[in-house]
Amino acid sequence: MTRKVGVIGMGNVGSTVAHYIVAMGFADDLVLIDKNEAKVKADALDFEDAMANLPFHTNITVNDYSALKDADVIVSALGNIKLQDNPNADRFAELPFTRQAVKEVAQKIKDSGFSGKIVAITNPVDVITSLYQKITGLPKNHVLGTGTLLDSARMKRAVADRLHLDPRSVDGYNLGEHGNSQFTAWSTVRVLGKPLTEIADKRGLDLDQLDKEARMGGWTVFQGKKYTNYGVATAAVKLVNAILSNSLSELPVSNYREEYGVYLSYPAVVGRDGVVEQAQLDLTDEELQKLQTSANFIKEKYQESLEAKD
Amino acid sequence: MTRKVGVIGMGNVGSTVAHYIVAMGFADDLVLIDKNEAKVKADALDFEDAMANLPFHTNITVNDYSALKDADVIVSALGNIKLQDNPNADRFAELPFTRQAVKEVAQKIKDSGFSGKIVAITNPVDVITSLYQKITGLPKNHVLGTGTLLDSARMKRAVADRLHLDPRSVDGYNLGEHGNSQFTAWSTVRVLGKPLTEIADKRGLDLDQLDKEARMGGWTVFQGKKYTNYGVATAAVKLVNAILSNSLSELPVSNYREEYGVYLSYPAVVGRDGVVEQAQLDLTDEELQKLQTSANFIKEKYQESLEAKD
Amino acid sequence: MTRKVGVIGMGNVGSTVAHYIVAMGFADDLVLIDKNEAKVKADALDFEDAMANLPFHTNITVNDYSALKDADVIVSALGNIKLQDNPNADRFAELPFTRQAVKEVAQKIKDSGFSGKIVAITNPVDVITSLYQKITGLPKNHVLGTGTLLDSARMKRAVADRLHLDPRSVDGYNLGEHGNSQFTAWSTVRVLGKPLTEIADKRGLDLDQLDKEARMGGWTVFQGKKYTNYGVATAAVKLVNAILSNSLSELPVSNYREEYGVYLSYPAVVGRDGVVEQAQLDLTDEELQKLQTSANFIKEKYQESLEAKD
Amino acid sequence: MTRKVGVIGMGNVGSTVAHYIVAMGFADDLVLIDKNEAKVKADALDFEDAMANLPFHTNITVNDYSALKDADVIVSALGNIKLQDNPNADRFAELPFTRQAVKEVAQKIKDSGFSGKIVAITNPVDVITSLYQKITGLPKNHVLGTGTLLDSARMKRAVADRLHLDPRSVDGYNLGEHGNSQFTAWSTVRVLGKPLTEIADKRGLDLDQLDKEARMGGWTVFQGKKYTNYGVATAAVKLVNAILSNSLSELPVSNYREEYGVYLSYPAVVGRDGVVEQAQLDLTDEELQKLQTSANFIKEKYQESLEAKD
Repeated sequence: MTRKVGVIGMGNVGSTVAHYIVAMGFADDLVLIDKNEAKVKADALDFEDAMANLPFHTNITVNDYSALKDADVIVSALGNIKLQDNPNADRFAELPFTRQAVKEVAQKIKDSGFSGKIVAITNPVDVITSLYQKITGLPKNHVLGTGTLLDSARMKRAVADRLHLDPRSVDGYNLGEHGNSQFTAWSTVRVLGKPLTEIADKRGLDLDQLDKEARMGGWTVFQGKKYTNYGVATAAVKLVNAILSNSLSELPVSNYREEYGVYLSYPAVVGRDGVVEQAQLDLTDEELQKLQTSANFIKEKYQESLEAKD
Repeated sequence: MTRKVGVIGMGNVGSTVAHYIVAMGFADDLVLIDKNEAKVKADALDFEDAMANLPFHTNITVNDYSALKDADVIVSALGNIKLQDNPNADRFAELPFTRQAVKEVAQKIKDSGFSGKIVAITNPVDVITSLYQKITGLPKNHVLGTGTLLDSARMKRAVADRLHLDPRSVDGYNLGEHGNSQFTAWSTVRVLGKPLTEIADKRGLDLDQLDKEARMGGWTVFQGKKYTNYGVATAAVKLVNAILSNSLSELPVSNYREEYGVYLSYPAVVGRDGVVEQAQLDLTDEELQKLQTSANFIKEKYQESLEAKD
Repeated sequence: MTRKVGVIGMGNVGSTVAHYIVAMGFADDLVLIDKNEAKVKADALDFEDAMANLPFHTNITVNDYSALKDADVIVSALGNIKLQDNPNADRFAELPFTRQAVKEVAQKIKDSGFSGKIVAITNPVDVITSLYQKITGLPKNHVLGTGTLLDSARMKRAVADRLHLDPRSVDGYNLGEHGNSQFTAWSTVRVLGKPLTEIADKRGLDLDQLDKEARMGGWTVFQGKKYTNYGVATAAVKLVNAILSNSLSELPVSNYREEYGVYLSYPAVVGRDGVVEQAQLDLTDEELQKLQTSANFIKEKYQESLEAKD
Repeated sequence: MTRKVGVIGMGNVGSTVAHYIVAMGFADDLVLIDKNEAKVKADALDFEDAMANLPFHTNITVNDYSALKDADVIVSALGNIKLQDNPNADRFAELPFTRQAVKEVAQKIKDSGFSGKIVAITNPVDVITSLYQKITGLPKNHVLGTGTLLDSARMKRAVADRLHLDPRSVDGYNLGEHGNSQFTAWSTVRVLGKPLTEIADKRGLDLDQLDKEARMGGWTVFQGKKYTNYGVATAAVKLVNAILSNSLSELPVSNYREEYGVYLSYPAVVGRDGVVEQAQLDLTDEELQKLQTSANFIKEKYQESLEAKD
């Protein structure tokens, strides 16, 4: 009965997720949660002040965990607002702060009786997604993270920009950690019906440079405004819609891969039952090694998080 | 050929206007301008990072006034970011700062050869709208301000909330200055096919309280997050769309009223030629007096602005 | 969980309802039902052939009444295709055909265990809506008809056209039977903040002519193409969305009015619980009499339908 | 200034194109043209009757070729309504009828002074697209046909259905004539990051069967309802939007390929300047031969059309 979405964390990212949902009428009921009661109430009232001029209607509930019980999807957008000056471009700098918050939030989600899907944006997203799954006890395929869906979009933007193409006409994936150990799997990138690697030389593309642009794209945005929100919020809402509409879209998201024993970004088929299938790419040896490195790094950080006495 | 919109000022409001336009595909070409080059470039890149996951395409140009020459509409969203702590809820506190910025921006718009419509959000919006018209030399009906389109939406929200109704099912206007001298013209407010004044008693509505909620709604949002953006950005985009699609929508916007000799909010019909008709309400004597007071106040502040040696 | 809508009848109207829902992504699951199995399967396949080029995903089920069990809303769009040449512009000419079909369909809906809301488009809609309620045994406020939501839109179009206004800027209602006994309640029609009756003289409007245009608008369309679909399908989807999103919109729809003892069109507040409030208009004596005539007519036809041995 | 689209031919396809544009607010001005004046006027009025209940506004002009002068895009949707019983599934059966109509329409478009882009849906689309270009004298890359954009969507639907995937997650093309000589270029089809040919065996896919389903998909729809509209209208509007928003999307459309000397479907990059780049696929020898056969067939039919004394 109707679409119900929760968004936890009303910082720059969470409020943008909520705005996108409200503007497009993607959900009927929206539950907004933040520790900063004044902020979340202000955002809710601001959305309600927009309602008379918006084409679609959304009902908004504020700071009520019990309202999450029958939500279809919860988006975790909480972050550490104090970390907005992060000189090392390191998403793990947020971990000591976010893991503590997430442990608390995840327990409250569990206590609400929630049995839907979780889409995590909170960084470091692969570790955080693992924590959500662990604490809520939800099935592994019901908890996923935006992961490199954003980084892949950045790679597509960078490639498309050079080739004067629609980024939607670039196929391919960034894989691994949504962080510094990630990489563009160039063997998977295709444009104009061909592997990009075939076209790169002819068109004067420097793949290392593009890889860097994709990986550091978020950093460039961050330096300019001390946060990033539109790219990642759009990726998160795409996942929410894939779940709600059971579209079975193949997307590079953070999902649990048995062979690596961790959550990391790898293409998966997303529908109403969460991750319903996992792709098996034909990666090069070099790519496989990078992926293993990324997996090891996530695993280590996840272990630390579990052991941390927060 | 195609829809082209400019947004000047990439603060909380301008970037939300841009996001709403990008998310809904309302424009084909979007020109974003801000003195803070790092911020506007970061927002543009962030939108481009969203593009691969968005259903519609928008082309973004940054900080190029010459690109405004053939724009259909320019939205002025510049504000004074330093004034985010404004203990008196007074939009005129912004005036010394914004009028200077607007004088500069308006001249640059004029120099670009722009011949479209201007939608001003910048506060104090009635004075600022006058300044834009004066400096650009555009016809008076081609320059308008969001004015009480937002306050009317707040009034509708407040009334709808009490009566358990869709705010879109509340008709009526807040009039005058988009500021402290504004008022809800209760004689114009209707719900369920009746004047609200008839229903108010029976339903236990305290109109003075509702009036205050509408007028101070922005302030409540402001206190909670130090800015307001969703309500006003939605109102601005509604105006942009009315202009682009020539919908001839009747909306309470800041428009030049000959009988008052100033820009103030009063319902007008908005289409591709800007304000194409002005309503003539049957206001009560008390409402007429409030409107005159509001007009006098705007006039005085506008004179001060013209005379100020910025 | 997620939005599920059923559409029964895949003629010109039902398929347009389905197309609008699919194009805008208004529902996640769509159940399409028609006795003409070839037609409904062809439409479903055609929608699926569109899916790769559409921004939103919809899952389509064909001719499975059991899939309606957990639907949020069912739209009844079945009609009598043989009646496409209807020289007397009389929606009751359809009744002998549609009442029989509706009796059968309503029983199947009941048997499915459906407990949602029904939106009837099938003509004569007021009688048909009554039949659906009677047979399914659903609460009276859970069954409604598009009624004069369409005729009111036609009236708004006619008025807006003369006054060079957005039809959305015309308020007011057509009331009574969605048929020849309906009428525009001019006492309720307002534009530019005034009663239309005040403006009419000054602007040279002939209200009788406009009334006729509204009432006969459908007939004009019908004569041109032997059916009408876009106006009524849009009205129906607006109702579906009001229900799904619980918008509590006040809309002139066919709903059961105790004082008349029949379903007829009169403004009501529509949300997730169907009709949640009924307006009480201040109609003129003449309007009240017309409404009573309309009510009597519907009542008589409804009695005939119940007694008919279909 | 603003988006202006013309649709010529208000049969099942043209009116669906118009409805999709109106429902989504994709254009500001819509010019509808049909020889059957009663039908096109009925559709226009029907859209206007929907307007009060639609979120976006569109201005509609009927049967005025001079209004096409400044249109951005014209969609040719005219067809031969008498051919609705077409026992041989042969789009060329329409040619004697449509080529005559198109010759007349193309001349009128030219006489209007139109200098935008043409998107042809009219069958046989490759020949018809050639005729439009020839008669209007527009640059070859400014005239294109929906071609196998629809057939590729059908192939994606068929593949996605078997693999339980979103059709949007299937990449690849049908190539050549939008007709019986077309084929799925399986060497281009990829799912889950792999060539489909690798997956086909494991998943028990019969590619010949899928190819047939894609090629005959339209026929199945046609048999069920005597026309096809949703799939092809959606494809056409996708092209219109790519042109309006200059998205530079790579899409399999009918475009003029120098090496074959004809219009045929092959992936091309579509933007505001029409076809701005042409892909160069790595087809297999068998695929190249099929494409040559398809090209020869189109060429022959085009020559016949030119020579026909219509």
